[in-house]
Amino acid sequence: MTARVLVVDDVEPNVRLLEAKLQHEYYTVITSNSGEEAILKALRDNPDVILLDVMMPGLDGFETCRRLKEDSATRHIPVVMVTALDQREDRIKGLAVGADDFLSKPIDDVTLFARVKSLARFKSSADELRLREAAGRRIGVIEGSLNRDLGLNARILVVEDDPRRAARLKKILDVEQRPMLMQDANDLGPMGQSTVELMIISASGVSFDGLRLAAHVRGQENSRNLPILAICEPDEKVRALRALEVGVNDFIYRPIDDEELLARTRTLVRRKRHLEHLRLMVDSSMELAVTDQLTGLHNRRYMESQLKGLLARAARGGPPVAVLIVDIDFFKRVNDLFGHDAGDDVIREFALRLASNFRPRDLACRYGGEEFVVIMPDTNAADATMIAERLRSSIEEGMFKVGAGRQVLDITCSVGVAIGHAGELDFEALLKRADEALYVAKRSGRNKVVAQAA
Amino acid sequence: MTARVLVVDDVEPNVRLLEAKLQHEYYTVITSNSGEEAILKALRDNPDVILLDVMMPGLDGFETCRRLKEDSATRHIPVVMVTALDQREDRIKGLAVGADDFLSKPIDDVTLFARVKSLARFKSSADELRLREAAGRRIGVIEGSLNRDLGLNARILVVEDDPRRAARLKKILDVEQRPMLMQDANDLGPMGQSTVELMIISASGVSFDGLRLAAHVRGQENSRNLPILAICEPDEKVRALRALEVGVNDFIYRPIDDEELLARTRTLVRRKRHLEHLRLMVDSSMELAVTDQLTGLHNRRYMESQLKGLLARAARGGPPVAVLIVDIDFFKRVNDLFGHDAGDDVIREFALRLASNFRPRDLACRYGGEEFVVIMPDTNAADATMIAERLRSSIEEGMFKVGAGRQVLDITCSVGVAIGHAGELDFEALLKRADEALYVAKRSGRNKVVAQAA
Ligand SMILES: [Mg+2]
Ligand SMILES: [Mg+2]
Repeated sequence: MTARVLVVDDVEPNVRLLEAKLQHEYYTVITSNSGEEAILKALRDNPDVILLDVMMPGLDGFETCRRLKEDSATRHIPVVMVTALDQREDRIKGLAVGADDFLSKPIDDVTLFARVKSLARFKSSADELRLREAAGRRIGVIEGSLNRDLGLNARILVVEDDPRRAARLKKILDVEQRPMLMQDANDLGPMGQSTVELMIISASGVSFDGLRLAAHVRGQENSRNLPILAICEPDEKVRALRALEVGVNDFIYRPIDDEELLARTRTLVRRKRHLEHLRLMVDSSMELAVTDQLTGLHNRRYMESQLKGLLARAARGGPPVAVLIVDIDFFKRVNDLFGHDAGDDVIREFALRLASNFRPRDLACRYGGEEFVVIMPDTNAADATMIAERLRSSIEEGMFKVGAGRQVLDITCSVGVAIGHAGELDFEALLKRADEALYVAKRSGRNKVVAQAA
Repeated sequence: MTARVLVVDDVEPNVRLLEAKLQHEYYTVITSNSGEEAILKALRDNPDVILLDVMMPGLDGFETCRRLKEDSATRHIPVVMVTALDQREDRIKGLAVGADDFLSKPIDDVTLFARVKSLARFKSSADELRLREAAGRRIGVIEGSLNRDLGLNARILVVEDDPRRAARLKKILDVEQRPMLMQDANDLGPMGQSTVELMIISASGVSFDGLRLAAHVRGQENSRNLPILAICEPDEKVRALRALEVGVNDFIYRPIDDEELLARTRTLVRRKRHLEHLRLMVDSSMELAVTDQLTGLHNRRYMESQLKGLLARAARGGPPVAVLIVDIDFFKRVNDLFGHDAGDDVIREFALRLASNFRPRDLACRYGGEEFVVIMPDTNAADATMIAERLRSSIEEGMFKVGAGRQVLDITCSVGVAIGHAGELDFEALLKRADEALYVAKRSGRNKVVAQAA
């Protein structure tokens, strides 16, 4: 794991020293002597990690970090604050302005490389998502600003077999999180359906091996993205670094500083929620491509892909599939007499009633214009016709109010029904048969359900 | 980096030995004694890496690997073939059936962990993309099977300062790739616009440090995803592992085996192309959400997001923005007289002419039905009106042929023009003014361009 590191310090020899150390480990280094310049370079060079001195004239490290974390263009870059040794307040303050981690001067090489490596790894895995999200944002399928989550009120699983220590952890976390204690790591089981957002694992458990537990959680499909904070003994530096190696995201040494524990917890929770949010954005922007904008129903593209899948299942001996084409009668008159907006009102209201007349497993789509398709898995002709008839009569009986004046219109619809034969794979032929049945319904007076001849 | 490793070997003690070694390094291990079972476990447990013995009764390792790589559900899992020492044919054959790497028995621990770690890292970074792609496929925005690229004919940059060795590398690669030699690594420059698909770097260059060069390439934004193959001296095992650490994707020892070089090259190229393809699929499925399906023009959602951006720019002192609403005259008659399909033909043809009448920087969108919007950045009312007039007359003069009979229709359109004032941020108000101008054009006889009163 190599990375580009931006080193920021007002004292030139400090910059040179860090630069030399990092370059020796094959990191690419960018440098800056002030907070102002660091912000510009962060924007321009998009480094993977920023090492940021706290004490600087002009913009100090805290203010620089705050600005970096406020700007959506730099927010994703991990920031490590570099503080004087034992400046507890500085560390807490740094985490509070959004820093991802900190290091104390004089900087210990092994810790430096472990921290940089761990953060660079996090950024690299998040970047793939972030770039997709940015692409979606550029073209307007993803909108709205990302809410800045505070990382509070998360369900946190604390694995610690020393009851006294466990109680103390719970007491600290209770202030702003929702911790749950687990003393026997063997009770863990699969984390699949769980809503846990963070695990805190004691690396010095007696009844379990904390690192092995962390590796196990990281290795399971269901908990792969669950962040883990390890709690290490002060003399266990090697073990702490090993913990990072096996996939722990962060660690803290005993004796535990309350505020540091809370700050690191918030950072990990915030980061997890941010990634989940990015995933959701990308997935739902793809969903948009199969959603009809006027009605919120699925569109033709989605319907066709699902119908293909169902027919393939039916061909392998699965149950039959019913297809309905539903068309609003005399829809053109609505547009001509009451205008386009009234027409849209009718389509929207019709879509709502359509959706509410079918079962959860049925798939209602807008096919285009005033035409809808409903796919009914595992349904024979008699049942499909009965449900279509229920829809028809509910449309006939209900009122449609349109426009600003809430003008009341009488609307009816016609329905054509067809059934996918066992072994039939041509979804277009099936839709065509439903369309032919619809044509018969229209020709014979509308406001009717017609099923294809068996 | 921890991971779930599936160990497959017909000899139980071999399985136990590997299992113990891997568990000691905190890997989670799944085991299997046959190829048949391995395929089932790969499907069910989705491991991160598979270590696959070559010599097994029943399905041997080659056939097992071939089947794993043929199935789209397991294709993405890296496979390491475990061969007897110096079985050159086995290694070549393994790579040929799609194996990602191989190890020789008895297995050297350091090499084992390096290979597993490197492949698990690759899988973990690819998984985020793969899951998004799978989601898109499920809902039908991504269709078609992934083509199985052979990894041939790639542009490959070979960095080697020994002319004799460079010539030999070129000669081997020339058979199925397009290698380019570079003897001075300082000539590299930015790789941004380059079409290079793989770099092969000599780790024993005299005039450059191969590992530093690899780290540099990996660290640059533009070449972050470029795979790198390192060529190492036979006595440089530590350096080879270090190369993997700094982000080299694979290495090969001298003396170079022609077929091994070609096989590893193909694997890296194939993997890169696969990832690029996944990225493209995800991005273009998001594009679908802003594309009008009938015309291929951008849709209303995209237009609105871009217009917002342009108005924000104009508000910050940027140039004015012109907005045109274009409406096909008497379109309903086309549908009524010639049917819906003819109507679609007209819309499609109209969209083509619309797009060809504007400048590349203008943005033509289908707004809905027979209505189009064109956004013209940096354009004043006079220029916008002139260009709109050119469109109007080209529509009036050209013929529209519709339906199977290629019936010729006369089509005209009306255009309303409005200009975004400096400081105007309300895109809806701007569109409304253009719509009012369009209304005037329609009322005063159609086939006209009307600009809003200044
Ligand atoms: Mg300072
Ligand atoms: Mg064997």
